[in-house]
Amino acid sequence: MNRKMVISTLRKMLFFEGFFLLVPMIVSIIYGEAWWPFASVAAGLFLIGGIGNIKEKSFDRAIYSKDGFFIVGMVWMLWSAFGALPFVISGAIPDYIDAFFETVSGFTTTGSSILTDIESLPKGMLFWRSFTHWVGGMGVLVFVSAIIPLAQGRSMYILKAEMPGPAADKLVPKTRDTAQILYVIYLVLTVLQVLLLVIGGMPVYDSLVTTFGTAGTGGFSVRNASIGAYGNHYAEVVITVFMLLFAMNFNVFFFILMRKFKNAFKNGELWLYLSIVFVSIVIVTINISCMEQYSGHVGDAVRDSSFHVASIISTTGFATADFASWPALSQSILFILMMIGACAGSTGGGMKVVRLLLLGKIIRRDTRKIVRPRGVEKIRLSGNTVEEEVLSGVKTYMLIYFVIVFASFILLSFEGKDFVTTITSVVTTFNNIGPGLGKVVGPTGNFVTWSAPAKIILSIDMLLGRLEIYPILVLLMPSLWRKKTL
Amino acid sequence: MNRKMVISTLRKMLFFEGFFLLVPMIVSIIYGEAWWPFASVAAGLFLIGGIGNIKEKSFDRAIYSKDGFFIVGMVWMLWSAFGALPFVISGAIPDYIDAFFETVSGFTTTGSSILTDIESLPKGMLFWRSFTHWVGGMGVLVFVSAIIPLAQGRSMYILKAEMPGPAADKLVPKTRDTAQILYVIYLVLTVLQVLLLVIGGMPVYDSLVTTFGTAGTGGFSVRNASIGAYGNHYAEVVITVFMLLFAMNFNVFFFILMRKFKNAFKNGELWLYLSIVFVSIVIVTINISCMEQYSGHVGDAVRDSSFHVASIISTTGFATADFASWPALSQSILFILMMIGACAGSTGGGMKVVRLLLLGKIIRRDTRKIVRPRGVEKIRLSGNTVEEEVLSGVKTYMLIYFVIVFASFILLSFEGKDFVTTITSVVTTFNNIGPGLGKVVGPTGNFVTWSAPAKIILSIDMLLGRLEIYPILVLLMPSLWRKKTL
Repeated sequence: MNRKMVISTLRKMLFFEGFFLLVPMIVSIIYGEAWWPFASVAAGLFLIGGIGNIKEKSFDRAIYSKDGFFIVGMVWMLWSAFGALPFVISGAIPDYIDAFFETVSGFTTTGSSILTDIESLPKGMLFWRSFTHWVGGMGVLVFVSAIIPLAQGRSMYILKAEMPGPAADKLVPKTRDTAQILYVIYLVLTVLQVLLLVIGGMPVYDSLVTTFGTAGTGGFSVRNASIGAYGNHYAEVVITVFMLLFAMNFNVFFFILMRKFKNAFKNGELWLYLSIVFVSIVIVTINISCMEQYSGHVGDAVRDSSFHVASIISTTGFATADFASWPALSQSILFILMMIGACAGSTGGGMKVVRLLLLGKIIRRDTRKIVRPRGVEKIRLSGNTVEEEVLSGVKTYMLIYFVIVFASFILLSFEGKDFVTTITSVVTTFNNIGPGLGKVVGPTGNFVTWSAPAKIILSIDMLLGRLEIYPILVLLMPSLWRKKTL
Repeated sequence: MNRKMVISTLRKMLFFEGFFLLVPMIVSIIYGEAWWPFASVAAGLFLIGGIGNIKEKSFDRAIYSKDGFFIVGMVWMLWSAFGALPFVISGAIPDYIDAFFETVSGFTTTGSSILTDIESLPKGMLFWRSFTHWVGGMGVLVFVSAIIPLAQGRSMYILKAEMPGPAADKLVPKTRDTAQILYVIYLVLTVLQVLLLVIGGMPVYDSLVTTFGTAGTGGFSVRNASIGAYGNHYAEVVITVFMLLFAMNFNVFFFILMRKFKNAFKNGELWLYLSIVFVSIVIVTINISCMEQYSGHVGDAVRDSSFHVASIISTTGFATADFASWPALSQSILFILMMIGACAGSTGGGMKVVRLLLLGKIIRRDTRKIVRPRGVEKIRLSGNTVEEEVLSGVKTYMLIYFVIVFASFILLSFEGKDFVTTITSVVTTFNNIGPGLGKVVGPTGNFVTWSAPAKIILSIDMLLGRLEIYPILVLLMPSLWRKKTL
């Protein structure tokens, strides 16, 4: 490992977090709230990041795969660790573990909260909480590398480690230009949603933070009753559409911008994603129509079912109704959607639709192989042959996915909470959604009742989910921490 | 596909089922019950099987991989379909779907029941019900091929399709000799258990049927309260030990018989299996000790926890206590054990411990590969290198496993039962265990409340689980049913 380069990159990244903290600081000043919690942490980060840069001399700037994973894992840990400090210093979230959980939940765009009364927090603090969604959505390192070159032409290894989805679907070469293009698309969609919400009568502050939550597919709201609190059906429809958009592969928007419509829509993942959304909405709508509150209100049923299907498959986690009290079938569908997640190359989490698509193709091919052992068949995706190594990687990834779910489930079971609460707490955090099922962690509940060790396990699950396992797994490899390699 | 050979083999197998039906017929005669339900079905099977054999002329007897899978899938479907008839004809289980579910549950050694009052059934019927466990345990085709050559030297394809576990651990060549050796071991262990139970004061009839349930790791009992009904602690300990034995790879017993002790114990799967059993017993014992009924009764806690850990990991499903009312942690551990299942080459079901072992090795290797992309590392199991093709097969198998669990879960959710009942109904049938968790399908409940379509889905899950997916999947391939191939 290139130790000097790794430490230099980590310093740069901390320096940048200081800049990000200035945004909520300005919000605090505007609303006449205490701004020094942000200012002091920012100052500390400038100091840590800056001193290193002064001492820096010329050194080998080459970084490799391993360094990339290590940097990404460490940056996300450090950003969360420091990002939690303003909450503690200001007293908004007095307990550090709680603040860390909330910040990890923000950066990883999960949206699971330990807050019981969100509305009692200062506006600046809630702004920071939602802003972490927006920054984390596209990836903090992608963000920074769009502005400055992180590792002179080698940043590809960092981007590769931070961007979600298997390599199979990376159609554009991931360079600094790509990062910039992606961020421009992200920014344009964000501005568009804010405008549409403001036009619909939502206050500017609420429109901004709600859009941060949508764009990052995070799900933090500034209201206790989430989006349901506004009672604004127009806003609910706008948010539904944007949740679905932000969960699409950004390559689609890129191709549309380039007027390569054929490339944009010759995308197997996109069509599978849209089909799953459509079928789920139909089934859930029919299923919830039997509930008393929806009988005779077909419009409400369609809107609520669309909103929550979009909210869950995009891994956002906003709510307008208590879906934990919906009939069993609807809950089961939401549970499966939780695991499927969004498209690769989006801001959403989960297993990713493209992996599901590849899995289907792998199962079909391998079953045929059992019957005709000598047959050789290639798997194609959107017209391109997928290499066997990528397929093998997808299979291993999905299996590690289940191992992590079951291991976390067993660990959390030591708390003695009921089956549904325990399993959905794991699934919702690991897939970066937010709310689970049941009364405790459902859309009307929160994660405050979990113990501190459980909160740390769930925080790790959120990081594992957002970074697609390996960067965090690499941090846990003992061989990497030996003096020699460091 | 060799159509003539396939049909001839299917006929032979039906003929043999007729013979098996004579056993419960004799039991019925002994107890003065109606024997004609068995006699009439047996006569029918002799007719179907016999007529074909008379018309048979010489033809090509070669069979291949595809035929093997097809034969195995069909035989299990047909045996269950005909095996259900005596229950319906006698009126013991008037509904055919219920009788089919119960018979599939028997042959697949699942042990899930739709009976609400088991003790009200005639002794002959209950004997047949338990006898299906014993026959299904080692495989019905393995059984027959131990007696007659099924396909002249080609029966290996049939055995391969019926025997559980990935090829990696098949240390002895699977020929007719192997089938005979395996059945001798099976028979000796069975006789041993019957003797030990009779010595302990259990009636001979009960000892026999209980042993059938143990040997096949099935779990049907002739008492409503399962093994708990006897209140015989000695018998519970005997059954615990034999459940654990029947869930071991029979190769271990083979090597011990051959006095190759080094081979017997140089078995990674065996040690992992024993470790899982030990750790689970310790955790469950500590966990249930906090319950009122076990406070101050450490012996009871150890015995009940050992019994149920053995019952679940071996996929037997006997019960002496209502573990669905145990604390959450114990239930979670039992839930995970349900999926892990027994060792390959045993009579038990589930994912198999060896697959878990290989999965651990695959994850470790592939994570290292991410960090060092150019490294080449072989995976070894019990001293032998495992081929990449086998590893790839294990990965695909486990993923299909999860796809089936989730697909069945969604289908059963249409019934609107609660989350725990629905998911554990799938997991317990697919892994051939028997009882699930919760009040409905827990050890004190049964599967009668599921609708007919749900019972068919669960029956298919049982067959998928017992035959390790592919033989049933092959039956569902449309290409196999086209006139040309048939």
